[in-house]
Amino acid sequence: MALTLARIALIGVGNVGRRVLGILEEKQPLYRERFGLGFLLVGVADSRGAAWSPDGLDIRRVIALKEAGGAAADYIGVGRKDASGLDMLRHAEADVLIEASPLNLSDGEPAMSHVRLALERGMHVVLANKGPLALAYPEVMALARQRGRRVLFSATVGGGLPAVNIGVRDLCHARVDRIEGVLNLTSHSILARMAQGYTYHEALEVAQRDGHAEADPSLDVDGWDAANKLVILANAVLGYPARLGDVRILGIRGISPKMLQHARQRGNVILPLAVAERRGDGYALSVQPTEVGAEHPLASLTPVQMGIVYHTDTNGVVTAIVDEVNPVPTAGAVVRDLITLYREGLWSGI
Amino acid sequence: MALTLARIALIGVGNVGRRVLGILEEKQPLYRERFGLGFLLVGVADSRGAAWSPDGLDIRRVIALKEAGGAAADYIGVGRKDASGLDMLRHAEADVLIEASPLNLSDGEPAMSHVRLALERGMHVVLANKGPLALAYPEVMALARQRGRRVLFSATVGGGLPAVNIGVRDLCHARVDRIEGVLNLTSHSILARMAQGYTYHEALEVAQRDGHAEADPSLDVDGWDAANKLVILANAVLGYPARLGDVRILGIRGISPKMLQHARQRGNVILPLAVAERRGDGYALSVQPTEVGAEHPLASLTPVQMGIVYHTDTNGVVTAIVDEVNPVPTAGAVVRDLITLYREGLWSGI
Repeated sequence: MALTLARIALIGVGNVGRRVLGILEEKQPLYRERFGLGFLLVGVADSRGAAWSPDGLDIRRVIALKEAGGAAADYIGVGRKDASGLDMLRHAEADVLIEASPLNLSDGEPAMSHVRLALERGMHVVLANKGPLALAYPEVMALARQRGRRVLFSATVGGGLPAVNIGVRDLCHARVDRIEGVLNLTSHSILARMAQGYTYHEALEVAQRDGHAEADPSLDVDGWDAANKLVILANAVLGYPARLGDVRILGIRGISPKMLQHARQRGNVILPLAVAERRGDGYALSVQPTEVGAEHPLASLTPVQMGIVYHTDTNGVVTAIVDEVNPVPTAGAVVRDLITLYREGLWSGI
Repeated sequence: MALTLARIALIGVGNVGRRVLGILEEKQPLYRERFGLGFLLVGVADSRGAAWSPDGLDIRRVIALKEAGGAAADYIGVGRKDASGLDMLRHAEADVLIEASPLNLSDGEPAMSHVRLALERGMHVVLANKGPLALAYPEVMALARQRGRRVLFSATVGGGLPAVNIGVRDLCHARVDRIEGVLNLTSHSILARMAQGYTYHEALEVAQRDGHAEADPSLDVDGWDAANKLVILANAVLGYPARLGDVRILGIRGISPKMLQHARQRGNVILPLAVAERRGDGYALSVQPTEVGAEHPLASLTPVQMGIVYHTDTNGVVTAIVDEVNPVPTAGAVVRDLITLYREGLWSGI
């Protein structure tokens, strides 16, 4: 099999980005054998600088630098403390940008500029960062079409959960009447563990230790992260050009242990549920703590599971659930998108 | 948007085939609008004859004929009682064959010949019939590659459940260590209803009334149908060239109401579980009634749900479940494949 070498640039080397590198490094032999596909890291940037080289960077060395508390700029010979992600993108000859920098919901920057520049320079884009799509889905996709490049983003909604892909591909023929999702693991795990007797702060600490919650968890517990994901699903799956302002958002801070216990006594659970419900030509979107009965498809989620339910006309009700004990499945989803860019047509049976 | 007109031939107009026609007829406007895709039925065959016309057949008329107990051959003007599916394929100028004829596990015929002839004549193939893949997956795919055509088959495993697609596409980058599936609805619904107090025969009657079980249910209750599906998953998802003879098969006839009640008393359920477990370079395959605890991802399936669990290295544990109260989702899966043939590349964001 001929080997295709995909040159990748990575911006953001945190919980997800570092694990993406780890998977690529560990599984290069498998991808070469299975897909005839190799990856060359030609650029990397984090908040403290960047490094790039047309000959490729040693992935193991980048991981080691980050694990030792260092930065991309510390890469000997090609690291630059004075360079940004944009500088790296201007110089690196990459085929794909993986955007995994921290989320910024006010204007999506600098991720938005990274995506624009990458597309303008002819790169495909794989997003782990939700910001650009939550804030400007139609614009990003229009630019991709105009440049003949693809933007894949299956990791942005539910990590390893194939929520986007099931909606966009497997339900392409169906009318989706309702989506229900537990899309934010931090909120869900906090409620689930509080129902088991943990305090809010104990439950939050577990989520932070597992690498799910940020040091500042407000985007999670106030519902914004789930709302972002719902906006992405609305645009991608429902063809409904929703924006963040269209989502009615209620976080979980108002939920007390007593409320959770009472629900439990009724045989119910309280989930931080994201819902899109068809209303006429559009959809009503909401994120809020919701009490559901034991028969609900997501009622049995463990504290480390996320899930989504699609109610459709011609495809029945489809539920998907993922165990996400750490961010590896999210990193796996980024790698899945990376491979998807290159493998279509490689495997005739599919 | 320019309109692409896909000419389709259908063999088999039973529970699934008829519903495929129903969906295509009902949703033509949606598919034209969403994908710029129209369908023209240029040939149809059932066990009593065939009909074909380059100008297209009226889908509503074909459905009405079948619902009135008639046959494709009764189509006025172009119906032929002396013609077979192969005759139809020789004459109809179709772009895609939908093969939905009854399953034959001894030699896969006549479906196997239909698939061969269709590929040789340059048609893509969408399979609802499991036979050709369960008996000859590598050969079918080799012929498709050789002819530059695609064989899609997402409806063959779990109906509307995107079991094949999740495995082949969303987990393409992962190592799958274990698959567990409830893939035969008749067996599962019988066990589930027996656990609720139905007798075997009462539970079987419900399954037959819902359009799931055949008049002769032995392929279902003896485990062969699930074993077929497991063989297809092994070949397509695991890249493991299994054949039916490689599957250890035990049906559900030996399960008594008492066994189900005892399991229930222990807080467990008995599922007709299809399992592929990694062993060295290969996989051990089995289909058998299996007692699982309440924490198993498929323990809460209702009698009309099927499900699959993928245990992976870099994508966590992914579970998918479908409600299949009637064969509509299976027909929906056929339509999904039909659209997938044409839409790749249509939608740049994806």
